[in-house]
Amino acid sequence: MDNKKNRAVVRVPGTSANCGPGFDCLGVATTIYNYLDLTLLRGSKIIVESKGEGAENIPRGRKNLAWQAVRRLLQEVKREDEFKGAIIRTKNNVPISRGLGSSSTAIVGGLVAANEILGSPLNRQELLKLATEIEGHPDNVAPALFGGFTVSVMDKGEVQTFSFLPRIKLKLIVAVPDFELSTRLARKVLPKHISMKDAIFNISRASMLIAALVEGRADLLPLAFDDALHQPYRKKLVPGMSEVFEAAKNAGALGAAISGAGSCLIAFTTLKSGLEDKIASAMVEEFKIHGVNSKALILDLDRRGAQIMKR
Amino acid sequence: MDNKKNRAVVRVPGTSANCGPGFDCLGVATTIYNYLDLTLLRGSKIIVESKGEGAENIPRGRKNLAWQAVRRLLQEVKREDEFKGAIIRTKNNVPISRGLGSSSTAIVGGLVAANEILGSPLNRQELLKLATEIEGHPDNVAPALFGGFTVSVMDKGEVQTFSFLPRIKLKLIVAVPDFELSTRLARKVLPKHISMKDAIFNISRASMLIAALVEGRADLLPLAFDDALHQPYRKKLVPGMSEVFEAAKNAGALGAAISGAGSCLIAFTTLKSGLEDKIASAMVEEFKIHGVNSKALILDLDRRGAQIMKR
Repeated sequence: MDNKKNRAVVRVPGTSANCGPGFDCLGVATTIYNYLDLTLLRGSKIIVESKGEGAENIPRGRKNLAWQAVRRLLQEVKREDEFKGAIIRTKNNVPISRGLGSSSTAIVGGLVAANEILGSPLNRQELLKLATEIEGHPDNVAPALFGGFTVSVMDKGEVQTFSFLPRIKLKLIVAVPDFELSTRLARKVLPKHISMKDAIFNISRASMLIAALVEGRADLLPLAFDDALHQPYRKKLVPGMSEVFEAAKNAGALGAAISGAGSCLIAFTTLKSGLEDKIASAMVEEFKIHGVNSKALILDLDRRGAQIMKR
Repeated sequence: MDNKKNRAVVRVPGTSANCGPGFDCLGVATTIYNYLDLTLLRGSKIIVESKGEGAENIPRGRKNLAWQAVRRLLQEVKREDEFKGAIIRTKNNVPISRGLGSSSTAIVGGLVAANEILGSPLNRQELLKLATEIEGHPDNVAPALFGGFTVSVMDKGEVQTFSFLPRIKLKLIVAVPDFELSTRLARKVLPKHISMKDAIFNISRASMLIAALVEGRADLLPLAFDDALHQPYRKKLVPGMSEVFEAAKNAGALGAAISGAGSCLIAFTTLKSGLEDKIASAMVEEFKIHGVNSKALILDLDRRGAQIMKR
């Protein structure tokens, strides 16, 4: 068997879900990438080799998330009897369990690579559906697949996503604390019921955020990143959260938010402002005051989503 | 005194708030108009003459809403001692207490006309602030002032509005029932607390609605007009609401919603579709099945908001 034909390398962006008010529906792709090198095998062997972020903790066998995605795609296109194993090599830059969508990179990487090897039987919308099913929600898999900002709507169990590029050049500053935060715990602290007032707070800001981004109105963004639905409850899980937001804004950020379910915090500024380093320092320093060691990533918006690098 | 100098005529569009998911923050201006002809008087006489919709019920004296707006503007710019009365002539096409923003037309008309006569001491943002203060919320006054679709955010008691024109040519079909619905009653039936799930339902759809309108993606609109926060509770106040929505969609509408707090229902289609008459008939017929007499208005988007017609 010619392995070259059965191999694809995919680059998948790390992603930040929610962006403040867009709880469980907005996401943005960033220029930090994980790479997945997949070879499909006829035999049932699973070989996983990982480098980089969290390499030591990535499951090596059939529990490997990228393999599960590959396997799901093989089933979907009814070719699971043809390919029973895989060699999966990953090189990861996206921090694990920090709210930057590392698990989505594995899922999307596995799906896109396997789909490529099989001659693209599924389109991106169909891949999104599978990815959402595996991940349980579209918040990170949607921007990981499509790039840009994404709005996802769940309609009768089906996901529909719209991806757009803002007419503002943004810099994304991510403060990455040295502690992990499980999405499960971050979900557990949320109330099941909220006030109508808080819902309207978020609806109006999410609407303003989309309008300001699409129309290129940076002046409206300072209003648009605030949230009343999840961050107030998650504050206790990320020491200094509100203060780091304030520090970022005082350093000139247009807004700041928890990245996904945390622990990362993300701030936004324009490329033009040139303030990204200042904001990054302010966030790391403020975290330190609250006893949290962190490092800063200064990222751009990823415009393309998951990309095939090699066949 | 030369009355000509103290006179302005303003045309103000009727508006439809909420647009489904954008509860208390989205609005759209339509091509049905009220006209307000204001003459400021030195003396304290208030003369009100009304023609058209609801003319018989419009307060004639100091309780007249347009006068209250004029008076508020005079106070704001500290000229209330100069002008103590007014002649207010209105010609109204916007149905009263039906959710098409008739009271906002009086407020915005009074403010814009008085501001014009006084040499425009306030800009539109400042007028919006006064109008929101008088009306209690920005949902209708914002599109009445700015035209197009509007997103309004309340931030520490201050309103900020962004107005945009969609990249889709829309037709708006409004079914106007023969009964009024008070906003107070329509607010009273709403719960103070709602589920997080329903909030996310609306956040995602409002975000999708804005993105689809701004980017000109009519194909995404059928997902985007649904609501879980107010319409399910107001259904009982508008007999046949859900069925009229369905009838509109079955006739080809992209979506349908309660207009403001009702009683009007509004459906959306593209100019290109040519389906507006069919949708209008379907809505009126379905209302009839539920014992409601109604008439249909087929409207376009108003692009300019309140306009000075004459000095």
